Amino acid sequence: MLIWQDGDWRVSETVSSRDRGFLLGDGLFETMLAQEGRVRRLDRHWRRLTTSAQALGFPVDLKVEEVARGIATLIALDPALRSYAALRLTLSRGIGPRGLLPPELPLVTWRLAGAAYQPPRGPAILARTAIRRDPDLPSCRHKTLSMIDQIAATQEARAQGASHGLLFGPHERIACATSANLWILRDGQALTPPIVDGAMAGVTRAALLEAAVGRAREASLGWDDLLAADGIFLSNALMGLLPARPIGASGGPSASAIARIAKLQDLLTEAG
Amino acid sequence: MLIWQDGDWRVSETVSSRDRGFLLGDGLFETMLAQEGRVRRLDRHWRRLTTSAQALGFPVDLKVEEVARGIATLIALDPALRSYAALRLTLSRGIGPRGLLPPELPLVTWRLAGAAYQPPRGPAILARTAIRRDPDLPSCRHKTLSMIDQIAATQEARAQGASHGLLFGPHERIACATSANLWILRDGQALTPPIVDGAMAGVTRAALLEAAVGRAREASLGWDDLLAADGIFLSNALMGLLPARPIGASGGPSASAIARIAKLQDLLTEAG
Repeated sequence: MLIWQDGDWRVSETVSSRDRGFLLGDGLFETMLAQEGRVRRLDRHWRRLTTSAQALGFPVDLKVEEVARGIATLIALDPALRSYAALRLTLSRGIGPRGLLPPELPLVTWRLAGAAYQPPRGPAILARTAIRRDPDLPSCRHKTLSMIDQIAATQEARAQGASHGLLFGPHERIACATSANLWILRDGQALTPPIVDGAMAGVTRAALLEAAVGRAREASLGWDDLLAADGIFLSNALMGLLPARPIGASGGPSASAIARIAKLQDLLTEAG
Repeated sequence: MLIWQDGDWRVSETVSSRDRGFLLGDGLFETMLAQEGRVRRLDRHWRRLTTSAQALGFPVDLKVEEVARGIATLIALDPALRSYAALRLTLSRGIGPRGLLPPELPLVTWRLAGAAYQPPRGPAILARTAIRRDPDLPSCRHKTLSMIDQIAATQEARAQGASHGLLFGPHERIACATSANLWILRDGQALTPPIVDGAMAGVTRAALLEAAVGRAREASLGWDDLLAADGIFLSNALMGLLPARPIGASGGPSASAIARIAKLQDLLTEAG
């Protein structure tokens, strides 16, 4: 693991136990895929992180070029990261006085970590969870270090024998899956819940909406839409697009659905 | 700061940067008051923490007697903690594999920290915030390390010139304040929102409900109830009971309200 310190990335495996990231979940992160040393969509990840940082009042005292350099260092240091790597960039609000209120000029910390990544062999199995997402809350709008609700949803899904939980937003509408966005195929289109329904603003979700204009769009979805869909898939930065099915549904995704998802994946890959 | 390791408390100022407490806000904490070396309501704090730990699937591999011993060590090590100290016990799910799902047998970590504490000179100034609490979510039901929404509420309150934010639960009902429970005085009673309205299950709140049976009870409250109240106060483990007023309201708490709050504080202190 690397930490940004005195203008350079240095190896460090620890955090101060007074860091607000640890004490209060006061930070942000991005998970990114590196393939053969090349990071996918670093600019989009950086834009999301810095936009959230600004909204929450974190100073951004680092440049994306430095992040790219850190990632290259990380991969150079560890041969296990050379084919597929799950990278994580973590920004925390650092050490502050006791209490919830952040210091006016936080001494933020930046960390980079990597782990060898094994792309999943789908399909994902989806189960409903009781965890609701409120699109007005920072914990929903941003990818923060405060993940206890998503952890609980993941546990709830696993207890049912599923690989991913489905989280609902306001009005019984589907928001997204645990650590992934949800999509269905219907009438020749790929549909994904809008942000106002509680969807995480996924980087891969945004990239697919742009890459497949006319074939992918936002739409509010309920559980019945899922059951009636021509196909279902998840998206996130690590997995790309992964076919999925609701738990208990007979059979997996159809061959034609898998082919259409593969085609969307090709569009996404071409878009870079 | 102390960490529980190999059956004893040891001095440590760091956390692994792979600890789920840091990466995901996956942990719990208690804030306690020590006065002249004596911890207030340790048993209640311990009960709340361990009940939440069980609900979230954290093994509890420590005894409350060890916590008491750790606190005594902490205070002995630091003269600044001898009159008033804010103590913090933090339980984190420790290091696990990548991803949201906790390991089946987590290697939890326990930490104890203390800071000199200065009791506030009230009254607290309250401002409404846009942060909603959902009483079904783990982040609301338990005192977890995932505090980003409460942090945002605190920032929102401070930006309005208030000392504490008010958070609302379902149906426009008041839930609690940032890092404190809310109470009003009405018809000779002290009223505090019920847990189903999104109130944090505060230790001091529970102690007052028991100590002042017949004079304190749960009741759903709206903003108008606050404006019409005979008095308002906050409770938490550090401050005890602190008179409060809504921001913009003319004048502070009345002398009779302050006297009644002081009387409730006496009941609480007598109860131990």
